[in-house]
Amino acid sequence: MKSIEPKNMKKLRTLWHKLESETEIQVIDQRQLPHQFVSEDLSTVEEVFYAIREMVVRGAPLIGATAAYGVYFACLEAEKATHPETHFEASIQKLRESRPTAVNLFWAINRQLKAIEEGKTWAEKASLARQSADNIVEEDVEICRKIGVQGLSIIENIYKNKNKETVNILTHCNAGMLGCIEWGTATSPIYQAHQKGIPVHVWVDETRPRNQGASLTAWELSQAGISHTVIVDNAGGHLMQHGFVDMAIVGTDRTTRQGDVANKIGTYLKALAAKDNNIPFYVALPSTTIDWEIRDGLKEIPIEERSEMEVKFIPGWSVEDQKMQTVRLTPPDSPAANYGFDVTPARLITALITERGICEANEEGMLSLFPERAVPNSSIK
Amino acid sequence: MKSIEPKNMKKLRTLWHKLESETEIQVIDQRQLPHQFVSEDLSTVEEVFYAIREMVVRGAPLIGATAAYGVYFACLEAEKATHPETHFEASIQKLRESRPTAVNLFWAINRQLKAIEEGKTWAEKASLARQSADNIVEEDVEICRKIGVQGLSIIENIYKNKNKETVNILTHCNAGMLGCIEWGTATSPIYQAHQKGIPVHVWVDETRPRNQGASLTAWELSQAGISHTVIVDNAGGHLMQHGFVDMAIVGTDRTTRQGDVANKIGTYLKALAAKDNNIPFYVALPSTTIDWEIRDGLKEIPIEERSEMEVKFIPGWSVEDQKMQTVRLTPPDSPAANYGFDVTPARLITALITERGICEANEEGMLSLFPERAVPNSSIK
Repeated sequence: MKSIEPKNMKKLRTLWHKLESETEIQVIDQRQLPHQFVSEDLSTVEEVFYAIREMVVRGAPLIGATAAYGVYFACLEAEKATHPETHFEASIQKLRESRPTAVNLFWAINRQLKAIEEGKTWAEKASLARQSADNIVEEDVEICRKIGVQGLSIIENIYKNKNKETVNILTHCNAGMLGCIEWGTATSPIYQAHQKGIPVHVWVDETRPRNQGASLTAWELSQAGISHTVIVDNAGGHLMQHGFVDMAIVGTDRTTRQGDVANKIGTYLKALAAKDNNIPFYVALPSTTIDWEIRDGLKEIPIEERSEMEVKFIPGWSVEDQKMQTVRLTPPDSPAANYGFDVTPARLITALITERGICEANEEGMLSLFPERAVPNSSIK
Repeated sequence: MKSIEPKNMKKLRTLWHKLESETEIQVIDQRQLPHQFVSEDLSTVEEVFYAIREMVVRGAPLIGATAAYGVYFACLEAEKATHPETHFEASIQKLRESRPTAVNLFWAINRQLKAIEEGKTWAEKASLARQSADNIVEEDVEICRKIGVQGLSIIENIYKNKNKETVNILTHCNAGMLGCIEWGTATSPIYQAHQKGIPVHVWVDETRPRNQGASLTAWELSQAGISHTVIVDNAGGHLMQHGFVDMAIVGTDRTTRQGDVANKIGTYLKALAAKDNNIPFYVALPSTTIDWEIRDGLKEIPIEERSEMEVKFIPGWSVEDQKMQTVRLTPPDSPAANYGFDVTPARLITALITERGICEANEEGMLSLFPERAVPNSSIK
């Protein structure tokens, strides 16, 4: 492990090949942000397992990409093992168990297994796995870039309608480059507007309990030099009532066929406030996160309940001790509940921004961009 | 200063006369809750000033009551001073400056000044001030008790309609006994339902940034043995969508003539979610917090902006060091904004619960309980 200055890198990514090494990647240890920039070297299945399980890396696309290199390392390790097949199988099993609820993890591993089928030796398989992992990375970058191009048009319109005053954008959680490789989803239009010289200012919901906004989104906007202000999750409604928000944009973990969106807990409250104040509320998503098999998000999307410890305790930077420290916020014997996500009904969403274009949050709108998903005699309820 | 076990007291209050002392009161040091129960002795103007300024005591009624005893101490000190009048004037000025935005502070000081007018000597004035302060305390207890009686009927109805299943109540911030003397406002119906044997369970919004819910409301419900669960402020909407909340009840800092309510930041978001899910949303208030001079809360109530440090840093209990510790949550150079309150429009409020009864949140409803406030040829816009 070593600490590097992100500004020394040409363009910051969350995962990259280690300089002068064929068999190592590096990732940002996101548990340390925003307090320390630390990168981790990953060169074994064990290290990849640890990085995913302990949330050194997080965010669906980044978990998938990291696991993809895990399959590459599994091939390299199999080559040297006494019983390659058994060793490889055990490695894949281990990777699958690193974060059992992460859909992208399984998707990436399966794609890798398919990619190496053609390889005749473990060396060949390793080479194919590495190439395929690189492809997964570049595809994610390209999808996020395209989402940004689409979303940019929305920001440009607001900018014109505001007579070229600063565009104020509220976001919740981290749907930024840190959850992806580069650009991010909800942040991609913001980065592109900034690059184009449009003055933007971002209201960053801190996003309790894990504070991905205050720690990750604020950090990456800082790195990019984009004007932003951290607010508690309670503040967004007040800001909207007083005209301080021109648009809201968030990411999503899962979107249904009719445009209901499961995203970080609290997203629904911001969507309600946006509706109540006639402020457009956008959801940015790669089409891979659309679940075409379900319609009613409230009824059909199970909501993860996480440890109450994440509510009762909070990590931060102790200025006194110059290190990360965790403090308890509640009475020791008061229980806490910790729901990871909520569902924002499509009726509260102005539009969905995908890599293929912008559409209304309903089945008709979504099928206009993804006509191949139309099912004439659908069995989907 | 000494630490006492609240369970040794007959009935916990936030302010009480020190045992075997004529000239000292004791208050709970609320900055230490929920981590330590520490009481502070107050027997001088200087100590009262410090207790109010440093938020040893907080909550409008409790600030008022503490300041009232401050006037009593000012009389005692004047009696011994070389220049009693000058000394007394300076004391009153100091008390007024302890928390310049607290309306109850000025109200209590003015009431005390009136109460001591009749006193011919400083000893007589002191005696009158003490009696008047005691009255202020007992009146607050009685008002809060009456609010509880009114609100109890609402809980009883829900209990009956639920076939005697547990009534789930969501609250935001601390409108509990800790902000008052006893009972509290929003918590008073809950305490009374609990005493009557109605099973209640309280969802306690942690209430960022100052976490009055996670620290104070959770603590006082714990002390009273009332079932509760701490949640992040983001979670309430999800709970309401899934039928886990039967009613919401909050306090208020200021209520307008038409029933708009200024309360802790984030209240508006919960009121929106309650409306969206057909869940009744109540505001409990002593009539002293009604501002009959204004109508439109959004336009007429100025919202206090507090230090960004309250968002960027958070105090808690370090289990490692066994002491209070403050940690930083954000990148050091990311700015934060900190709005103290928001306004919930009357249209989102099911009813107001006052010491005189329950009424609709509009001018007609309020005047039905307070007919003396009707102004035939009103100059109020």
